[in-house]
Formats: sequence, structure tokens, C-alpha cells
Amino acid sequence: MTTNYRIILNSIKKHVLLNEEEEACFCSFFSQRKVKYKETLLKEGEIADATFFVNEGCLRSYNIDENGFEHILQFAPSGWWIADLYSVISKRPGTLNIDALENSIVLVMLRSDQERLFIELPKIERYFRIITENSLVSHRQRLIDNMSLSAPERYEVFCKRYPELIHTLPQKQIAAYIGVTPEFFSKMKSKMK
Amino acid sequence: MTTNYRIILNSIKKHVLLNEEEEACFCSFFSQRKVKYKETLLKEGEIADATFFVNEGCLRSYNIDENGFEHILQFAPSGWWIADLYSVISKRPGTLNIDALENSIVLVMLRSDQERLFIELPKIERYFRIITENSLVSHRQRLIDNMSLSAPERYEVFCKRYPELIHTLPQKQIAAYIGVTPEFFSKMKSKMK
Repeated sequence: MTTNYRIILNSIKKHVLLNEEEEACFCSFFSQRKVKYKETLLKEGEIADATFFVNEGCLRSYNIDENGFEHILQFAPSGWWIADLYSVISKRPGTLNIDALENSIVLVMLRSDQERLFIELPKIERYFRIITENSLVSHRQRLIDNMSLSAPERYEVFCKRYPELIHTLPQKQIAAYIGVTPEFFSKMKSKMK
Repeated sequence: MTTNYRIILNSIKKHVLLNEEEEACFCSFFSQRKVKYKETLLKEGEIADATFFVNEGCLRSYNIDENGFEHILQFAPSGWWIADLYSVISKRPGTLNIDALENSIVLVMLRSDQERLFIELPKIERYFRIITENSLVSHRQRLIDNMSLSAPERYEVFCKRYPELIHTLPQKQIAAYIGVTPEFFSKMKSKMK
């Protein structure tokens, strides 16, 4: 299986301009990994040493509360990054699980390599500074939405944020992202029609 | 009033090492501003062009929902950054209000100056990349907490995150951060004793 860097290079291009040599250097830091449907890439309690870029398929990160309920923090379809950043930065056991919602292929970047790249290729630090800012803005907005919006309004926000996932994700997964039970979600959607 | 750069330079020192000349360059990009108790620094709907570093006092950022309830996103005591990053980045009207919970002094950095600094002094871009990563981790954790913890548990998390504010902030403000009414908060605290 040859590694496809087209999608990651397109993501980079939106924010910084690399020449051919820099692109080759950047790509050389990734390894590629297949993740099967339902396979776990990272388990709560493990120390995460890498960040994942989704080339194909779809992953999710989630937390399980003490009552066993899953709370989904993020879906990552093709072109998205996903990680337990807390664990990656702190080198302490993480609080998230990451698994695949379908057969997927990810590019893996070790934190140690990422930190080397920040020094060797400052444009890459710029790229990560920018996408981290964007991610912070979207987390902040979701926090506000969770505090101030009703469940149907949160569903509308989900549909805008992940338009490609509305019809492909199981309803149960969307419900766990919105923060309602699958039963409530099903009733809510019938009323919204 | 002379400008005090000690606190901001200490914050920098935790993450990158600047020489004297670089410190002077960095500091030259700030202007200083007094913000009186209850004064608004940024209003929802305005376009934010700056990020604020709190030298003295305490600020908060919050959103008002359609029912008039305030939802507090962040408290920023001395040594913290605060901004409507969405508006700063996108140059679109913001969704947050920022005001002072006591007489405060802030250092103001315009986004245009910050972007110049990112180019002239890459260590500053590193500093902001690191504190943005840290902020993302803490937003992510608050999102998980809001989805999975009870109000008393969220109050415990608040006490750990802002130990210096537990006894100085009005109860009403803490309640708006936790996401409960002041009445519920008061009853909850009595029960917890």
C-alpha cells in the first residue's frame, strides 16, 4: 500500500507554502496505519505519543463516564486531525478513547518527530499554531452551544459542522455527540420533521 | 503609570528563552489599558482586533443566550490571556463579551502586531503555539466535564482550576461558570458542607 500524502499536503497548503524539498521532508515524518472498523487506536489510561491525520474513513474520540455513557468529543472524517492532545503534551495517561467508525487509514506523527519538525521547519510550527487556534475556536463554540442551546439546536449545529456525516454515521453516534440518549434523539428527529 | 512587563515575561520564560533584546522587542508591541470594575472591553457583535494579557485584576468572557442567561466561558485573573479568538482570527463580529470583575490593568496586543511578531521572532510563535495547545486541552476537558459531571463535581473542578478565585468572586459569577442558577448554587454549597 503506497502512502497518500495528497490530502495532508492540501491541508498544509491552506495555511503555509512549502517547496518540494520541504514537502518531502514533512511527509518523511509520517508512518501509515490501517485501522479496522471498531478497532481502538488509543485507550483511556494509555500514554499517547502521536497525533493522527485521517486519510480515509472516519474516527472518533470519546470519553466514558462513571455510569458507562459515552460522550463523543470529536468525529474525524478524511482530512481531519485527531489525538488525545492532553496526553500527547503532558506525557501522562490520557482520558480519551479513539476508535474507527469504519475501515480507515491514518497518517501517524510522533510528538517527538513533530517537535523536531517545529525546529527544523518553522513553517510547520506555523501550520500547527494556526490549526490549533482554529480547533480552540471550535471547541469554545461547542462549549457555549452545550451551555446555551437546546438539543434540537445542537443537532442543527452538528449538521452544519459535519454535513458529510449526517447520513453515514449511526444515529447512536450522533446522539452521543449531541449529548442525548438514542431514544430521545429518535423522538426529537421525528418531531423536527 | 509605567508598564509592568514582569508577569508577561515570566509567562514567556516558562516556554521559550528570549535574550534581552528580544524581550525589549516583544514588550514594545504592547499598549497598556486600565479597565474599571464592570467596564466592558469587548461587546458581542464587535470585531475584535486584539488579545489581552491581564496584569492586575480579573476579567471574564461570557455569552448571553436568547433567554438572557449569562454563560461564562473563562475567568482571567492576573497572568492569564483573554480574547474572542474567533473574532480575532476571522475578523468577523464576535460572539463574546469581555468585562472586568474588578479594577484591572491589561496589556493589549493587536492581531496585526502579533502576526508581525510571529514572523520577526519565531520564538513568540512557539510561545503562542504552546499556550494555544494548553488552552485547547483545558477547553476540551471542560467540554467533557460539562457533558459527564454533575454540578457539584463541576464546582470541584472549578475550585482546582481557579483556586485564587473561590473566595474573591461573587457566588453569582461562579454559578454562571458552573452552569446553574445562583439559587441552585447556594443550596448545592449548603449541602456540600
